[in-house]
Amino acid sequence: PHGTAADIVKALYDRGMKIIDLSADFRLHNPEDYTKWYGWEHKYPDYLSKSVFGVPELHRDKIKNAQLVSCPGCMAVTSMLALYPLIKNDLIDIDHIVVDSKIGSSGAGAGGTSGTQHAMRAGVIRPYKPAKHRHTGEIEQELSEVAGKKIKVAMSPHAVDIVRGILCTNHTFLKKQVDEKDLWKIYRAEFGEEKFIRLIRDKNGMYKFPDPKFVVGSNFCDIGFDLDDDNNRLIALSASDNLMKGAAGSAIQNMNVMSGFDETQGIMY
Amino acid sequence: PHGTAADIVKALYDRGMKIIDLSADFRLHNPEDYTKWYGWEHKYPDYLSKSVFGVPELHRDKIKNAQLVSCPGCMAVTSMLALYPLIKNDLIDIDHIVVDSKIGSSGAGAGGTSGTQHAMRAGVIRPYKPAKHRHTGEIEQELSEVAGKKIKVAMSPHAVDIVRGILCTNHTFLKKQVDEKDLWKIYRAEFGEEKFIRLIRDKNGMYKFPDPKFVVGSNFCDIGFDLDDDNNRLIALSASDNLMKGAAGSAIQNMNVMSGFDETQGIMY
Amino acid sequence: PHGTAADIVKALYDRGMKIIDLSADFRLHNPEDYTKWYGWEHKYPDYLSKSVFGVPELHRDKIKNAQLVSCPGCMAVTSMLALYPLIKNDLIDIDHIVVDSKIGSSGAGAGGTSGTQHAMRAGVIRPYKPAKHRHTGEIEQELSEVAGKKIKVAMSPHAVDIVRGILCTNHTFLKKQVDEKDLWKIYRAEFGEEKFIRLIRDKNGMYKFPDPKFVVGSNFCDIGFDLDDDNNRLIALSASDNLMKGAAGSAIQNMNVMSGFDETQGIMY
Amino acid sequence: PHGTAADIVKALYDRGMKIIDLSADFRLHNPEDYTKWYGWEHKYPDYLSKSVFGVPELHRDKIKNAQLVSCPGCMAVTSMLALYPLIKNDLIDIDHIVVDSKIGSSGAGAGGTSGTQHAMRAGVIRPYKPAKHRHTGEIEQELSEVAGKKIKVAMSPHAVDIVRGILCTNHTFLKKQVDEKDLWKIYRAEFGEEKFIRLIRDKNGMYKFPDPKFVVGSNFCDIGFDLDDDNNRLIALSASDNLMKGAAGSAIQNMNVMSGFDETQGIMY
Repeated sequence: PHGTAADIVKALYDRGMKIIDLSADFRLHNPEDYTKWYGWEHKYPDYLSKSVFGVPELHRDKIKNAQLVSCPGCMAVTSMLALYPLIKNDLIDIDHIVVDSKIGSSGAGAGGTSGTQHAMRAGVIRPYKPAKHRHTGEIEQELSEVAGKKIKVAMSPHAVDIVRGILCTNHTFLKKQVDEKDLWKIYRAEFGEEKFIRLIRDKNGMYKFPDPKFVVGSNFCDIGFDLDDDNNRLIALSASDNLMKGAAGSAIQNMNVMSGFDETQGIMY
Repeated sequence: PHGTAADIVKALYDRGMKIIDLSADFRLHNPEDYTKWYGWEHKYPDYLSKSVFGVPELHRDKIKNAQLVSCPGCMAVTSMLALYPLIKNDLIDIDHIVVDSKIGSSGAGAGGTSGTQHAMRAGVIRPYKPAKHRHTGEIEQELSEVAGKKIKVAMSPHAVDIVRGILCTNHTFLKKQVDEKDLWKIYRAEFGEEKFIRLIRDKNGMYKFPDPKFVVGSNFCDIGFDLDDDNNRLIALSASDNLMKGAAGSAIQNMNVMSGFDETQGIMY
Repeated sequence: PHGTAADIVKALYDRGMKIIDLSADFRLHNPEDYTKWYGWEHKYPDYLSKSVFGVPELHRDKIKNAQLVSCPGCMAVTSMLALYPLIKNDLIDIDHIVVDSKIGSSGAGAGGTSGTQHAMRAGVIRPYKPAKHRHTGEIEQELSEVAGKKIKVAMSPHAVDIVRGILCTNHTFLKKQVDEKDLWKIYRAEFGEEKFIRLIRDKNGMYKFPDPKFVVGSNFCDIGFDLDDDNNRLIALSASDNLMKGAAGSAIQNMNVMSGFDETQGIMY
Repeated sequence: PHGTAADIVKALYDRGMKIIDLSADFRLHNPEDYTKWYGWEHKYPDYLSKSVFGVPELHRDKIKNAQLVSCPGCMAVTSMLALYPLIKNDLIDIDHIVVDSKIGSSGAGAGGTSGTQHAMRAGVIRPYKPAKHRHTGEIEQELSEVAGKKIKVAMSPHAVDIVRGILCTNHTFLKKQVDEKDLWKIYRAEFGEEKFIRLIRDKNGMYKFPDPKFVVGSNFCDIGFDLDDDNNRLIALSASDNLMKGAAGSAIQNMNVMSGFDETQGIMY
């Protein structure tokens, strides 16, 4: 669990071991971010800079040579992959980025509360932390890094009645006129070669936009979008399985990169 | 179905009958809005002004004496009730109103497509019209009226795995500094006496925010909010049963108002 | 919880109070049945005979004058109501009564285990006690009483992915030739006047047989059947809401009977 | 669809092609069974004997050399695999075999009715053909063949709120005293070497008995049982994915056997 991994990771690090950490303890680089998002002071602030944020699509080269890789939060990675190309290409108004997330019950962790019991959890659309969810910090860190300036994200997660899966509806407002074709070009340039990102937009059928139903059990992050001319809005949609790309799948993908294995080893079917 | 009710409504209207219309055919007052949102030209544009938008919480007095009342779209009424006090009190940035809706399968209408079959519809979080959903027009009309100027809304609905119920997550950005207490005062001033609006914010437990699970089968619209200081964001949440407050329940509530009955007659348990 | 209510009930009983007990501690009349089904020796075996089994449809007169009424187990009452008329009229082979029950997650009690967490409980059809489930003892007791001889029941419950509701599929083999009309006559004779039993068999549509979906939130027990000539089998189906007729609803119904109130007071909508 | 495949299959057969038929048109060997279970007279009764019933676990050698293989009904194969060893070893009372099936919505076929719409199908436990379901004929045929005498089965299917998966609760009454160890020996002797049958009985945990949740997406049929001494009852439980072992998976498994490929080719992960 978050907060308790720090000691173990530090000890292993000091012995020179390679570490892939699934906790949040070394995800954020700035010690103050732990005070802000987690409410505790980080015990080993010096080690934060030693950790590479474990999203190969963003930091593959650094991960290759890293000793410590921190796997991202499930909602964070799903959202940032959709937003990253937009920020990198300076397309959107950075003061009004709204991330509305929907997530299944397996995201609640192993512990369980009365609220995660089936009888209480079934049938809900439960806003569970409309403001200040911790994963926001990770998204802001990664987007700020590529932007070269501070980026704020307004995220609100909701619990819905599925077990596995996340959908992030990333509402953004365009700064300049772009059309669909331009946007696909930008996404393809960024992710066209990625093995675990699928760019989705059928014109017809039931799968016009990403839907976590179609990524459950896989390490894919599906990304698509829609344009709302009326509001100059770009809705970037991204879906993943919170137990795969959002957790164990990312860990294995990172291990493959660190070890020089084929990146899809063991996680592509 | 929408589009075919127009003839019937006109005929009944001309005979002097009182009409409560559940279709969309007389919801919008501006004929051009039918071209924009529905893609057809309205056959009886002169009659649009005769229709009262059927939300008693907003237009009770007009409904009392109306001959023709148009019941609102389910997502439209749920969203506008949360946003109305914010617009009326000029609290929010009107260029960045994001409405992220989640709705159950009974909202799909009686027809049914392969996408509404259980085997395809179960387990989804399916963005089904991220931009330009028709209900947007109703929200904009009603909010513009109270604002005295054009208000734009950026709405994106999602199909989730429940049968009945809507949650609207209305993301707004505050223009001025307000705290929680101020906001409750504003909501209570507007809706404190309303029989079918419940203002929700427990500090603890599972029901800190509106969740459609708790309104299913009732005519309530539950409203609550959360403040995100970090982004100057106010997340106004509203939940209703799309078959009740979003359809049949509203119709009965309007009938009660038009007939001078107790407004809760037959729809309060 | 079962086992701990015994002390309290005894104490209250000794003070002359009227008691409606929702625990299992005084449901069974024979002390040996506690050893058999619950694995513990009953502390107050003398009090077992003082308790009336709380199913008004079977014991209304006794309940009226009872000081202690024990509400039945949810699966027990649902199953026995369907089987009772068949046993009473000596229609079925008593050596091969198979009760296959399906129940929602709210039947699991307030405690919760890892198996009742949403992530584990969603999507299951989980046989959870195919043999020797405790509620079997209650069904056998009540059916044996009306038969005047020992009746055995072979019950197997299954957890399915709903929150509230029970369906009992009571598979029985007919001893004599009876047709549908005879059977309806028998059920109507037994339950035709009951306020909380609905006899169900549409010839068409989606509601040809009882389905818990249609009793959730109510105190009804719906009963229907189908005949399988090929096997001389009668499938008696019964559905209830385990939190209503199977628990709190029964308690109120019993209270109404004990108090001389209208039996439907507070539980009929 | 069933009934229309007959012409095509005959035509292909006459040209000497190898055929794997997923329809029901050549599953039953006795022409009278089509009159009984399907209500139509078979057009090509002479061809029924040419067809091999496509369950490799029962007819592997015949399938190897067959020209026409008929894949079984999804509920039929799931049930018969659990019952087969019991019949073959003459362990159970053949006059009281009760099969209580629970199945997901993908079993309803591609067509769809108002009853298979999500809004109507979600949350049900719907008995949909308590007597005389067509798959009964297949189970009876296969069990009768191994028994060398007529075996009757009393099957009742139920629609439950999952998409994929079948659980068959096969209630049987033992003719002779057998204990758990004997039974495992029998099942292992029959299926110990089978690649797609898993014998399941953990003593603890959530997976003590077969549950379709754990076979979805695979070609496995999981089999387990429980003993009810009190009633001399043996509850044999079997679970499969109706779209895999119950349909497409079986077809591929049969193709592998017919073609001399590894039987798991393409369907084992």
